[in-house]
Amino acid sequence: MNIQSFFPPRRTLMGPGPSDIHPRVLQALSRPTIGHLDPLFIQMMDELKSLLQYAFQTNNEFTIAVSAPGSAGMEACFVNLLEPGDTVIVCRNGVFGERMRENVVRCGANAVLVDNEWGQSVSVDKVEQAIREHPEAKILAFVHAETSTGALSDAEALGRLAKQHGLLTIVDTVTSLGGVPLYVDEWQLDAVYSGSQKCLSCVPGLSPLTFSPAAIEKIKSRKTPVQSWFLDQTLVMGYWSGQQKRSYHHTAPVNTLYALHEALLLLQEESLESSWRRHQQMHQQLRSGLEQLGLTFVVEESERLPQLNTVRIPEGIEDEWVRTYLLHHYNLEIGAGLGQFAGNAWRIGLMGYSARTENIALCLKALEDALAQCQASVPMR
Amino acid sequence: MNIQSFFPPRRTLMGPGPSDIHPRVLQALSRPTIGHLDPLFIQMMDELKSLLQYAFQTNNEFTIAVSAPGSAGMEACFVNLLEPGDTVIVCRNGVFGERMRENVVRCGANAVLVDNEWGQSVSVDKVEQAIREHPEAKILAFVHAETSTGALSDAEALGRLAKQHGLLTIVDTVTSLGGVPLYVDEWQLDAVYSGSQKCLSCVPGLSPLTFSPAAIEKIKSRKTPVQSWFLDQTLVMGYWSGQQKRSYHHTAPVNTLYALHEALLLLQEESLESSWRRHQQMHQQLRSGLEQLGLTFVVEESERLPQLNTVRIPEGIEDEWVRTYLLHHYNLEIGAGLGQFAGNAWRIGLMGYSARTENIALCLKALEDALAQCQASVPMR
Repeated sequence: MNIQSFFPPRRTLMGPGPSDIHPRVLQALSRPTIGHLDPLFIQMMDELKSLLQYAFQTNNEFTIAVSAPGSAGMEACFVNLLEPGDTVIVCRNGVFGERMRENVVRCGANAVLVDNEWGQSVSVDKVEQAIREHPEAKILAFVHAETSTGALSDAEALGRLAKQHGLLTIVDTVTSLGGVPLYVDEWQLDAVYSGSQKCLSCVPGLSPLTFSPAAIEKIKSRKTPVQSWFLDQTLVMGYWSGQQKRSYHHTAPVNTLYALHEALLLLQEESLESSWRRHQQMHQQLRSGLEQLGLTFVVEESERLPQLNTVRIPEGIEDEWVRTYLLHHYNLEIGAGLGQFAGNAWRIGLMGYSARTENIALCLKALEDALAQCQASVPMR
Repeated sequence: MNIQSFFPPRRTLMGPGPSDIHPRVLQALSRPTIGHLDPLFIQMMDELKSLLQYAFQTNNEFTIAVSAPGSAGMEACFVNLLEPGDTVIVCRNGVFGERMRENVVRCGANAVLVDNEWGQSVSVDKVEQAIREHPEAKILAFVHAETSTGALSDAEALGRLAKQHGLLTIVDTVTSLGGVPLYVDEWQLDAVYSGSQKCLSCVPGLSPLTFSPAAIEKIKSRKTPVQSWFLDQTLVMGYWSGQQKRSYHHTAPVNTLYALHEALLLLQEESLESSWRRHQQMHQQLRSGLEQLGLTFVVEESERLPQLNTVRIPEGIEDEWVRTYLLHHYNLEIGAGLGQFAGNAWRIGLMGYSARTENIALCLKALEDALAQCQASVPMR
């Protein structure tokens, strides 16, 4: 194979993540690498922690970025909080709820499933019923913003319910963090993870993670060791903790952490509230344009995520043909459907730096063209 | 906290990794992010796979980069190849052999330890004895190049021994890949992982990994699920495999993979043989200079890694004082001792792009100054 340096094209990323990266974040990414135990790097990590606390709206001392993508952040929550035989109530209304169930099973724990239709949010009533039927359950796990469907669940109500019944919560905020209101402390959420490549508009590869004091207590009272060495947060704490000398656990992904630092700084400069507002405003713009094109949303308006717009693929339109056309003619990526929605829905992301009027204009005009071309022509196969 | 953009200083990295990054690799890192399912990205991954096969000297179809640091690559080997109750012979002659034991235990398997002194290589005779005493053992795990001590073990002889007795091997090549000869196929090694930030001179965050057909067979014949979802390589195969449509497993760390692609391309341009020779030559230069400074090596000459030089800290010299002096006055990082060697040895890395004459000159002159200053002055505390 004759291999050359790889020069990617400049795409506009309006799928379910990675989203467009702010130029300042890409610049930060390529700054000179320094050691993961360098005093200046440790200082940067302290700042990063404080920026993550702001993004999560938490004072949790344990607030870090896992050195791997969101799926590893999810697994970090389950392997640290669960012990074999524990019962966990898992809310499943899309791909990521199902992935939570997989994690529970692989920890040797029992999953009680609360199912909702794909595209719907998690029913608080159903969860309450499950909690009453399973007094042995110790943990409630749910996805705040389902990336596979675009549905937003009521994390505040679910957090309150869990506390009323003495359960800890594991919450997936991969797509919500920075895009819609999230108040980890006020809502009393316990183990909350996210991803770097969605509304934070950082490159993929990191998973922000925060544990409440109650979660830490549960971890400290474990009778069995955490089954993963890499994700054992009692070991990771020794590296991220500011109280004493940092101890080596694994080599941190130095440059990607520079990038996350910059991305979070951008978020702080804009302010969370403004970012949430911007996502909502851009969503309304996109929505009205999509409706003018005759596209309809999968998710009810009241449960819809502004940053992830799942629309039905119209009758007679070929999914892959359109996405390929957008990519080739406009360097525009929109997301395919996942799971139940594969082939019958698109996911149009408006996450972080992607949530801009110029992106919406491009997307609407390009989609208009693609739909017309697809209807007019024999699809290229 | 008043937080600004982070501008790291320009350090010369001569510790145990991360090593200096080639400018071309940093450039590649900050190229525009594209989607992890973009056809052009998939094409880049195919090239990356072929470049990794070259670096590992293997034709293994399953050759990928784990989306997390070397410790996750290690764990990927153990959780995929082991089932509860399996017996594994673990060679322990430093920190990473001990980490392997930790992994075995967390998989619910049994570790038979073959211990060697820190700073020595793994004794092939001792391993043979352990294999004879434990016919139930299915796997032999060892570290090719111990990053904590600088000792090189005979991976060829250990691989041959394992095959003679029908054992699979798990081999840590985090510090060896690209720095000293390694022939995965010829030496019949089965599950081999490495790290991006050592002799490949890429940024930290990825773990190259290759599985032999025999390792794949073992994984496919498992009776229990892999305990980690994130590291379950039967799922990851669906994303990296070229045979059919790529399926989404997790969001790949797109930009860091660009960087690894470029780093491996540099290795291919130089050729493995030249890279091995360069590491050896640079080691001889550094060694002679260090000996002139009166420093002595921890590891016997015949077992010494050229890319990681562990030297005793002379009587009366303060470890941390010297390392801090080097960092502040010369922007030079050398590594502290780890584990048993903490406080009494330094680890001077000559890995990848760090293995250059200009780095050696700087290191020797700066160390000479630091040692003199430390002897002359009351150490600053």
